[in-house]
Amino acid sequence: MSTVAIVGAGFMGSAMTWPLSDNGHQVRLVGTYLDGEIIAACRKDRWHPKLRRTLPDGVTPFFVEELEEALKGVELIVQGVSSPGVRWAAETLASYLEPTVPVLAITKGLALADDGSLCLLPDYFNSLLPERIRGQVPLAAVGGPCIAGELAGRRPTCVVFAGREEALLQTLVPIFRTTYYHIGTSSDLEGVETCAALKNVYTAGIALASGLLEAAGGPGEAGAHMHNLAAALFAQASLEMERLVELMGGDRRRVHGLPGVGDMYVTCQGGRTVRIGTLLGSGLSLAQALDRLAGVTLESVEAIRILAQALPRLERAGRLGSDELPFLRHLCEIVAQEKPVRLPLDHFFSDSR
Amino acid sequence: MSTVAIVGAGFMGSAMTWPLSDNGHQVRLVGTYLDGEIIAACRKDRWHPKLRRTLPDGVTPFFVEELEEALKGVELIVQGVSSPGVRWAAETLASYLEPTVPVLAITKGLALADDGSLCLLPDYFNSLLPERIRGQVPLAAVGGPCIAGELAGRRPTCVVFAGREEALLQTLVPIFRTTYYHIGTSSDLEGVETCAALKNVYTAGIALASGLLEAAGGPGEAGAHMHNLAAALFAQASLEMERLVELMGGDRRRVHGLPGVGDMYVTCQGGRTVRIGTLLGSGLSLAQALDRLAGVTLESVEAIRILAQALPRLERAGRLGSDELPFLRHLCEIVAQEKPVRLPLDHFFSDSR
Repeated sequence: MSTVAIVGAGFMGSAMTWPLSDNGHQVRLVGTYLDGEIIAACRKDRWHPKLRRTLPDGVTPFFVEELEEALKGVELIVQGVSSPGVRWAAETLASYLEPTVPVLAITKGLALADDGSLCLLPDYFNSLLPERIRGQVPLAAVGGPCIAGELAGRRPTCVVFAGREEALLQTLVPIFRTTYYHIGTSSDLEGVETCAALKNVYTAGIALASGLLEAAGGPGEAGAHMHNLAAALFAQASLEMERLVELMGGDRRRVHGLPGVGDMYVTCQGGRTVRIGTLLGSGLSLAQALDRLAGVTLESVEAIRILAQALPRLERAGRLGSDELPFLRHLCEIVAQEKPVRLPLDHFFSDSR
Repeated sequence: MSTVAIVGAGFMGSAMTWPLSDNGHQVRLVGTYLDGEIIAACRKDRWHPKLRRTLPDGVTPFFVEELEEALKGVELIVQGVSSPGVRWAAETLASYLEPTVPVLAITKGLALADDGSLCLLPDYFNSLLPERIRGQVPLAAVGGPCIAGELAGRRPTCVVFAGREEALLQTLVPIFRTTYYHIGTSSDLEGVETCAALKNVYTAGIALASGLLEAAGGPGEAGAHMHNLAAALFAQASLEMERLVELMGGDRRRVHGLPGVGDMYVTCQGGRTVRIGTLLGSGLSLAQALDRLAGVTLESVEAIRILAQALPRLERAGRLGSDELPFLRHLCEIVAQEKPVRLPLDHFFSDSR
């Protein structure tokens, strides 16, 4: 049995305590500087207020101020902050990291490297580490469809652990695998991580359909929703994700399984990413929509902003045609230029039929 | 402007009258022998009871007994029966078909040829025609995500017209294209039609997750659904559809756009295919589930039955490995052998990660 620290006590970081506990591991759940109230609640009576469940056995909650104690002697660190927190995580964890202690990241997103190019989060995390340890921490990441509340409810879940060292993945999988948490492995970190970021981007885009329906007065007496439109957007998203995975050096087949359409499908079932897309589709500007969702971490918007900066660079380098990715480009216009929603449907599917 | 006959006054056949009418065509909507009540209602006050809408201008309803009159001088026939009705349609229409009058099929399914091999519905339709006209009717088919009630509500919809003659498709598209009905074309009839049949098959399979949730007592206080499971099933479905499209001689890229994941996504939004899968997942046997849905056409079950007959033949011919398509094989067991639901999740994604 191992001692595992999870850094980040939000939904997903906390949900990972269930399979770990069921496998008999000692788990230290460390809140970030944003998680003080959660840790206080967990300390009081083991009730996790976000997941609305009692923490399982073998889990000890720690405040961020107790990080040093929490990380002492751990054999594995789960990096469970949200994408805007990756820099904080790298800087905060730096002095405790060792080449013998792997870091498994559950954050989904993309980053911009210093030169303006797109960068996978595990690589970004590594780039922020001090020279002492940079390039020496064994890194892996989780992809695939996993709503945290379902994992904590021990519902059947299939995910992918991705990393460039297959041997590392083979040591990680048995630590987490349970009868309900099914884990496969992939050496295509580029493909899995690009999908993980893009499923948020495109789910926000697919949810525009719900907002457009609202703006059109709702389904009406005969019950005509806009599922046809949402499905067309889902299909275009799938095709554009392939192109982006390829641009990031991954294998486009990742899009066709758990990390791509699987994760995008589950993300479309509701939650904050659907809410921001719906608000934008209903006619609110980005500023108005963000105002409605004040305090909610919107990794979709963050990722679209990053892509809005990265796409022109890819185009200038001759790696992307100006007519490619029409759906993503429109999302960039909506988010980065506050343009109104006007889906360019007649530019979709141009090279796929 | 053209005169178009639609044979089959169910949801989708009837919904096709909207774009045709909006483009100024004369439309003759012909009920099958099952559609008598619908046509009677349409005759009375132009109210379509299934779509719950008033028929648009330029649409004339015909009873099946008036078929000869309805087909006189038409320039195009839309074949709008459900998959079990294709034989009836071929036999009934045979004497009226001409090499100058194209048939656009909206039926989704697969058939078994006389030799036991899988057969696309347009090819099956053609095979049933008398020698006089066999092989001479210009045939095309519609794929992609299209809920009929949304098309009739003029909601944005993107579809694919597929056929082996690009010139035919180019004559058909402008007849139907409107500001809300976006049509692309594909010469990959095998790919589009295989996807069209399989999206029903796999949507029934994905809906097992909702039934399993019911059987497990529902989401509980913390709200843990089984969306993770549904998403994993969606991903596995996408991967298996690729293999089947390939076996049928199509291009696996069809799976990644409108005909595949697009149509499967929209089918998962509800309706009879989701209902049969949910009932089966909740623990009912096929007979019990069919009893609950008495009178409903279940193209999913029909297609699974056909695949259950076809798969062993493909295996014997060495075209399919015994470990391939584990999800589809389990659906065949549930439907053809009335086995209980026990999803082989650990056999999924074996060659995709």
